[in-house]
Amino acid sequence: MSHSRRQTLKLRRVAIDTYRENVAFLHRECPLYRSEGFQALNKVEISAHNGGRRKVLAVLNVVDDAAIVNVDELGLSEQAFDQLGLGEGRPARLAHAEPPPSLDAVHRKIAGDRLALEDFRAIARDVVANRYAKTELAAFLVACAQAGLEREEVLHLTRAMVESGERLDWGEPLVADKHCIGGIPGNRTSMLVVPIVAAHGMLIPKTSSRAITSPAGTADTMEVLAKVDLSPKRLRTLVRRHRGCLAWGGTAKLAPMDDILIAVERPLSMDSPGQMVASILAKKLAAGSTHLLIDISVGPTAKVRRMNDALALRKLFEYVGDRLGLHVQVVLTDGTQPIGRGIGPVLEARDVMQVLRNEPDAPQDLRQKALRLAGRVLEFDPDVRGGDGFAVARDILDSGRALAKMEAIIRAQGARPEIPPPGRLRHKVPAPRAGVVTAIDNLQMARIARMAGAPMDKGAGVDLYKKVGDRVRKGEALYCIHADFPADFRFARQLMEKNMGYTIGSPAELEANTVTEWGA
Amino acid sequence: MSHSRRQTLKLRRVAIDTYRENVAFLHRECPLYRSEGFQALNKVEISAHNGGRRKVLAVLNVVDDAAIVNVDELGLSEQAFDQLGLGEGRPARLAHAEPPPSLDAVHRKIAGDRLALEDFRAIARDVVANRYAKTELAAFLVACAQAGLEREEVLHLTRAMVESGERLDWGEPLVADKHCIGGIPGNRTSMLVVPIVAAHGMLIPKTSSRAITSPAGTADTMEVLAKVDLSPKRLRTLVRRHRGCLAWGGTAKLAPMDDILIAVERPLSMDSPGQMVASILAKKLAAGSTHLLIDISVGPTAKVRRMNDALALRKLFEYVGDRLGLHVQVVLTDGTQPIGRGIGPVLEARDVMQVLRNEPDAPQDLRQKALRLAGRVLEFDPDVRGGDGFAVARDILDSGRALAKMEAIIRAQGARPEIPPPGRLRHKVPAPRAGVVTAIDNLQMARIARMAGAPMDKGAGVDLYKKVGDRVRKGEALYCIHADFPADFRFARQLMEKNMGYTIGSPAELEANTVTEWGA
Repeated sequence: MSHSRRQTLKLRRVAIDTYRENVAFLHRECPLYRSEGFQALNKVEISAHNGGRRKVLAVLNVVDDAAIVNVDELGLSEQAFDQLGLGEGRPARLAHAEPPPSLDAVHRKIAGDRLALEDFRAIARDVVANRYAKTELAAFLVACAQAGLEREEVLHLTRAMVESGERLDWGEPLVADKHCIGGIPGNRTSMLVVPIVAAHGMLIPKTSSRAITSPAGTADTMEVLAKVDLSPKRLRTLVRRHRGCLAWGGTAKLAPMDDILIAVERPLSMDSPGQMVASILAKKLAAGSTHLLIDISVGPTAKVRRMNDALALRKLFEYVGDRLGLHVQVVLTDGTQPIGRGIGPVLEARDVMQVLRNEPDAPQDLRQKALRLAGRVLEFDPDVRGGDGFAVARDILDSGRALAKMEAIIRAQGARPEIPPPGRLRHKVPAPRAGVVTAIDNLQMARIARMAGAPMDKGAGVDLYKKVGDRVRKGEALYCIHADFPADFRFARQLMEKNMGYTIGSPAELEANTVTEWGA
Repeated sequence: MSHSRRQTLKLRRVAIDTYRENVAFLHRECPLYRSEGFQALNKVEISAHNGGRRKVLAVLNVVDDAAIVNVDELGLSEQAFDQLGLGEGRPARLAHAEPPPSLDAVHRKIAGDRLALEDFRAIARDVVANRYAKTELAAFLVACAQAGLEREEVLHLTRAMVESGERLDWGEPLVADKHCIGGIPGNRTSMLVVPIVAAHGMLIPKTSSRAITSPAGTADTMEVLAKVDLSPKRLRTLVRRHRGCLAWGGTAKLAPMDDILIAVERPLSMDSPGQMVASILAKKLAAGSTHLLIDISVGPTAKVRRMNDALALRKLFEYVGDRLGLHVQVVLTDGTQPIGRGIGPVLEARDVMQVLRNEPDAPQDLRQKALRLAGRVLEFDPDVRGGDGFAVARDILDSGRALAKMEAIIRAQGARPEIPPPGRLRHKVPAPRAGVVTAIDNLQMARIARMAGAPMDKGAGVDLYKKVGDRVRKGEALYCIHADFPADFRFARQLMEKNMGYTIGSPAELEANTVTEWGA
């Protein structure tokens, strides 16, 4: 019931960032609050006092401190205030809000209906205009996850997400990108693929996220070497000049609907395949990518655990990508154990630089995986013959051109004056018996590294001395925990003692664990 | 990752009532916020600095005003602060929070599983301890609505809800209550059933809600005559003396899980049958009821629209009630049009008092329905023969004993010095043609009454002169809109002009509309 009340309140900006949920603040003693039967958490509509066109929807919070809002004031969280676009002290009206119109479609989804493109567009419009409360976003996400999205619906959702914001245009016919669906610690291939591909001359403006639940994201690791928080303008200049970057993607405003959904999805640990595919492809399309390589790591402790799930994801990526003009290639890779040796920003950056410098003891699995992925990206270039990409990538890496490109990108983004050392508190974890390493638990190794302080303490983490297939003697060190603070060090060791993350067995057991063959 | 960080912050109470969602406030420049990768809307765990047992979970908001929280402070919303139970300025730690343990069960429900009693109990424990964010509550509600709850699950949920809080014990073998599932304007039978039943000597401690989306709740209408916002203690004294009350239920703390769920459910317009049955029965069980009459109004513009849905609801109420020791009787009643004449607090209170005073022009449909319901409640008394309840109720009403009881209850709750008049701005809506009233739209009449100012302006609303079956001449008044403020008056008339809510047709059409027979 959108009911214009006669009393007005004075607008006030309340300097609280409630992320993309608009919040209105009323004093408990405000006469309007008492008379109108407003309740905390109810949705309200705030409009200019003349009932004009400026309107925002917000969730109501009640305040008992006149220093935040007074009894004759109506407080708005930062974004809601900016969205209303009126000055402080201006008169405003408050009314019970009607739900956003597209919520009907959400209710239809809850009832099991299939939604049309126009439904997803209407939802995207309302979401981006901040008309959805967090609970309404959660309802949408759960409804999609529970009933499932058909692939047409994933296509519609992706399209609606792309349309929800700006779309970059690099003015070039081939803009490459890569994305990894992993959950694999140490998997820093982007920091090798980008310099190799950019050295070849292909445009690859890579932006990455920071770690949320993992011990390091690409942005965290790159930050050991260079500044990653760059303005969109600076990023564009840099990319045009160097053909690539390794920046943090948080400052761009691409596919804003996706950001808003993720902010609710992540704390809820929701990640249905349909939402994931739409989210990834919408971001890449909005970023102006034309060619995308997706690396899906499969393994018992990876994010994607079964080959069937990975194959279904691949089909879905291909279906949606094809229809939206994005050339998508999906490779399935071995996600049974961490990649490289280091887990944690400094240790991972060390691995990456060892590979770039062609050091003899550089981690070979990281090198091989990066070359394989870079090769596939290079094959997006019509001048690179199918099957030749790997060799081209290897030439670029071996010749030092990838290293030179990385150094140029680091300088352009802003090189760190010095790289911090690995954490000085160290504990080497011995093998409990002789045998062969038959399994390494990605999740447990990630947990230990986080407990040790990664990614906040750049030097904290875990350094792996042994990988799956390696023979070990009893008491030989399997890995080393690095930390900077005694409490973290203690917690990480306690966690390790509960579950060291390594399984030592016989060569026969090893074979049973590694039946899957990974194609090139 | 529940990771104890070494830095501590000073606790501060932020006087914002975020209802049952704990919110933590960090200044944007707080070093912890920057280094830890906390994000707005993420869930955090706050603990005493010694990592002791006192812990609360909260959703994070970011603040840009040192007057709310300073960079070295950790703000907590009122309830979160009280729950942590430490003083202002005390050191506290902040960590990324693990989701509440029972969220696993929510994810299993999303995946389509059937939940067990222990799952619902665990969810209730976490919900009542404020460990759920609003988005997590929404996820639970949507998952239950979409997959549906089997009747065993409704039973488990009801039990878990009752156990989630205190339970009143009136120390008597028969504590009666009634509840209406309606959406029918003017349906103020409780204000007649309570005095009739209490005059008989049966205990009926009735609490009601205020209107949320309707033009009046029983609490709003009773408030025209008496105070309804009473302390639990005063309520108990009053009920023991007068055998009944008509109070607002908002102050009780019964079945708190239900209150928390409703606060999310209502703005989402979620009301799945399972949730509704669990919510109603849990509240009544917690309030100490032993016998409950449920009135389900069925009609094309009522909340329950089809007889099949009503019958399924009845079975569910009976199933759960029986297993939890609550004697439930369900009656299905005619919900095709408003009950009585007035819609809006003052006009409805007038109708009720006319019936109690046995005035000749009192609305007969309200009288008949109230007698029927009161009769069924009276038959809970073993001394009232089955089928005699209606006559007993009629005797109590006709003899003036119900009026005397109502007057006693009004005095005991605190009589209003005077009853406000119906809104002075009046507009009589004429019949557009001659014929018979064949239908009245409950929803539209409710909307017009709200637009006119109900329930905030007690005198505002709609007064019906004609009901279904009445013959009308062209131009004869169908109903009158009452308002107190010109803007409201104008809006209500505009809404009426779009859709007057009445259908005028031929007697044959009327018969086609009223095929359903309502048993006694």
